[in-house]
Amino acid sequence: MKKVDLNCDMGESFGHHKLGMDEEVIRYISSANVGCGFHGGDPHVMRKTVMMAKENGVGVGAHPGLPDLLGFGRRHMDVTPQELEDFFVYQIGALKGFCDAAGIRLQHVKAHGVLSGLAEKDLRMAEAICRAISMIDKDILWLTYFGTKTREIAESMGLGVMAEFYADRAYNAERLLVPRNQAGAVIHDVAEIQKRILQLVNEGTVTTIDGQVLDMSCQSICVHGDTPGALEMVQKIRSSLEAHDIAITPLSEL
Amino acid sequence: MKKVDLNCDMGESFGHHKLGMDEEVIRYISSANVGCGFHGGDPHVMRKTVMMAKENGVGVGAHPGLPDLLGFGRRHMDVTPQELEDFFVYQIGALKGFCDAAGIRLQHVKAHGVLSGLAEKDLRMAEAICRAISMIDKDILWLTYFGTKTREIAESMGLGVMAEFYADRAYNAERLLVPRNQAGAVIHDVAEIQKRILQLVNEGTVTTIDGQVLDMSCQSICVHGDTPGALEMVQKIRSSLEAHDIAITPLSEL
Amino acid sequence: MKKVDLNCDMGESFGHHKLGMDEEVIRYISSANVGCGFHGGDPHVMRKTVMMAKENGVGVGAHPGLPDLLGFGRRHMDVTPQELEDFFVYQIGALKGFCDAAGIRLQHVKAHGVLSGLAEKDLRMAEAICRAISMIDKDILWLTYFGTKTREIAESMGLGVMAEFYADRAYNAERLLVPRNQAGAVIHDVAEIQKRILQLVNEGTVTTIDGQVLDMSCQSICVHGDTPGALEMVQKIRSSLEAHDIAITPLSEL
Amino acid sequence: MKKVDLNCDMGESFGHHKLGMDEEVIRYISSANVGCGFHGGDPHVMRKTVMMAKENGVGVGAHPGLPDLLGFGRRHMDVTPQELEDFFVYQIGALKGFCDAAGIRLQHVKAHGVLSGLAEKDLRMAEAICRAISMIDKDILWLTYFGTKTREIAESMGLGVMAEFYADRAYNAERLLVPRNQAGAVIHDVAEIQKRILQLVNEGTVTTIDGQVLDMSCQSICVHGDTPGALEMVQKIRSSLEAHDIAITPLSEL
Repeated sequence: MKKVDLNCDMGESFGHHKLGMDEEVIRYISSANVGCGFHGGDPHVMRKTVMMAKENGVGVGAHPGLPDLLGFGRRHMDVTPQELEDFFVYQIGALKGFCDAAGIRLQHVKAHGVLSGLAEKDLRMAEAICRAISMIDKDILWLTYFGTKTREIAESMGLGVMAEFYADRAYNAERLLVPRNQAGAVIHDVAEIQKRILQLVNEGTVTTIDGQVLDMSCQSICVHGDTPGALEMVQKIRSSLEAHDIAITPLSEL
Repeated sequence: MKKVDLNCDMGESFGHHKLGMDEEVIRYISSANVGCGFHGGDPHVMRKTVMMAKENGVGVGAHPGLPDLLGFGRRHMDVTPQELEDFFVYQIGALKGFCDAAGIRLQHVKAHGVLSGLAEKDLRMAEAICRAISMIDKDILWLTYFGTKTREIAESMGLGVMAEFYADRAYNAERLLVPRNQAGAVIHDVAEIQKRILQLVNEGTVTTIDGQVLDMSCQSICVHGDTPGALEMVQKIRSSLEAHDIAITPLSEL
Repeated sequence: MKKVDLNCDMGESFGHHKLGMDEEVIRYISSANVGCGFHGGDPHVMRKTVMMAKENGVGVGAHPGLPDLLGFGRRHMDVTPQELEDFFVYQIGALKGFCDAAGIRLQHVKAHGVLSGLAEKDLRMAEAICRAISMIDKDILWLTYFGTKTREIAESMGLGVMAEFYADRAYNAERLLVPRNQAGAVIHDVAEIQKRILQLVNEGTVTTIDGQVLDMSCQSICVHGDTPGALEMVQKIRSSLEAHDIAITPLSEL
Repeated sequence: MKKVDLNCDMGESFGHHKLGMDEEVIRYISSANVGCGFHGGDPHVMRKTVMMAKENGVGVGAHPGLPDLLGFGRRHMDVTPQELEDFFVYQIGALKGFCDAAGIRLQHVKAHGVLSGLAEKDLRMAEAICRAISMIDKDILWLTYFGTKTREIAESMGLGVMAEFYADRAYNAERLLVPRNQAGAVIHDVAEIQKRILQLVNEGTVTTIDGQVLDMSCQSICVHGDTPGALEMVQKIRSSLEAHDIAITPLSEL
């Protein structure tokens, strides 16, 4: 039976501010990327999200971001690789504290916001992220974009890498995401999204924005939980996978 | 050979702001209480302090505080036991991340600022602290005031407790610190401080402000690193202990 | 024609986190209490809220809170009167900056969260708040609970005070709010709330929880914009006032 | 009698963290650039610094920075012109609150850290800064680098601009600062610094790193208060000016 992971950002509420429909969405996914307090999330939200993931059999990942609560970690800040490594060790450690407290393991780490793209563009940043993870625990997986060079970096440090697929985003011939400001960059049609996911899981390919069919090996599909219609979309993605006998499975069990 | 631990608060610098003489003081102590970013400290300072402790054979402790950088964790905030537990899990986890990265173990936890006193006054807070520590790792020691009830709470959770002695502070007949605003509360005379430490280590007693000699079993002496004259005081305390054949030893090796 | 002000907390969104239905509610009120960045609000939200108030002819007030974004300014912190004064000068000044930029005047100041109650209990805090306001501009009004002593403090500094009425909260015989944890403390029935407001405006009285009819002179009714049903409640309160020929008027025009 | 202003960054302490020798340096300067809480400074420090400036007859300026306390406003963050404008309105307003409370006027605004350079490189940012100042009060001066284009922007908005001279930094043929990482960029010799200041004030010229003598019209000299030797340097600069009958005068009185 084929398997795929569904990952979703969670635990980004802060204090009095509630964000997303975590309680509903968590029932349909298999891995949660949990905010660690820098771009979103706070200690109470982290505890609740980890417990909720445990109760739903969902794998827990740390989702470290830049120290910019106001900008939600979505704007670039000049940080050195050493600073980025420190931010990751701090945030991964904090979330691991809640995992230890809950008696579960920390499954993975996914970089938040501008940091995923930064790791693609500046390999010193990818190295910093991999160092942070591997120094804490080499069994923690790194969930990131599909990319050859970053994979090499991680594997050279003995780290497992999982690639994620953005089913609602067009890819170009370099297998990179088409920037949001270009026509056709974002796919809204549910049937199209379902089709792209099935193609990825069953055939290991993606059809690019210019019509090429390229190999793409991804273990996880990134879904969303904080936009209007998000819950319905996740439900439909899950139904479609189940209807095609594909098991939705946490990263650590793939 | 008799042994005692010397503990000191460290790693409370923040960003551009340097606090204390950590680099000098660390050569004379055996355990460091490291700020975890809420009242002081930041991820970079935490990494450097943990590495410095490792290089000097000094035991590393987490020093969690209230989320009040402006007030340095020294003013009371109304928090619930659950909130306090979450603050501790987060901060202990974050510092443990740096310990894991450095390949050393996290030796102890000491509550910062108003929180130590709070745990004495409100046993639900002591329970919250003990829960946070024991859920993460029962082998992490709790370093706190000499107190019967808090000891019982910790031991009932299978947690090791270490008591610390304030050599420069007067104690009353209840073995509690005389409040700073009372005459004689703070002891400045080095010879007197040295004498009180030797009495504690050799005889297991303290002479109270009203002249009683009471039993007091403490494994650690709290010293300071951020006041004028602090470094010289620590050096003299260390010299005095060594001159009396008392080994200065991290908590975990007592 | 009788007049009354309707005031509502606004501008408490922060970064990516949206709070309340400010855009809708502002069309029904006459004064807005705008978050100033300590408990909620940020510079961008402040600008937008001030502009929105200007466009709707709504009086702008500063709504300073404790420096506790995580706790939304709702939990007690030990601060001195001088510290509170400084927090108010800073936040009032910041909001006044946006009023100056928009070419409107800052109409009033209302203390947020635990601070209103604190000013009632500890008159040194009321003095600190009044000092902050009067040092910046004696023409800025202080909007607060109905209270004799605080009024005296403000008036002794040459400051105008406006009292607000909580139509959905029961009052006791001391004209204080019945604590939320007591039965009957919160009134949910719209007709009852409308009746209480009309009684206040037309007769200058409130019926206490134990049935007494007491004099109460309030110039403003506090309404809410961040709970389910809030918008509908505000609309009904406004309709009821208009149906009884009571003009909804900003504090500065009363 | 010739006049020149001496400006110095001040009020960058935060909470428990003391920065610089403000109490000493303020006796030798004529204008203070006061931190506003984003990169440094807090409401208490702001009040004390404004009062200290008032007592010493020193002009008060706002010194707004990026919202990055950890990075001290010294690292680039991607912000839009609108965001920068909002950050400036907020911080200028907050400091103006303390000036109003002290009964003095806010003399000037100087952008902190990376922001001064940013305004030179990206004129939309210079416009945003000028908009923020002029919307609050057109009589507040903008203190910035010597630059033709930024001057035009400010003057087109009816804003007064004052240029500052870095006596301890080499200039290139474009009248720009030689980057710190180039040889000769920083001048340490006191006599040389004194000579450059006298040349600027008396002749209105600077000698560039490659030996050209260029016109440069600056009304203020930037001095430092937070480095070893800073106080002595400021004293010597002041003595040298006084010995040459040059009056040290706040910007607003030039």
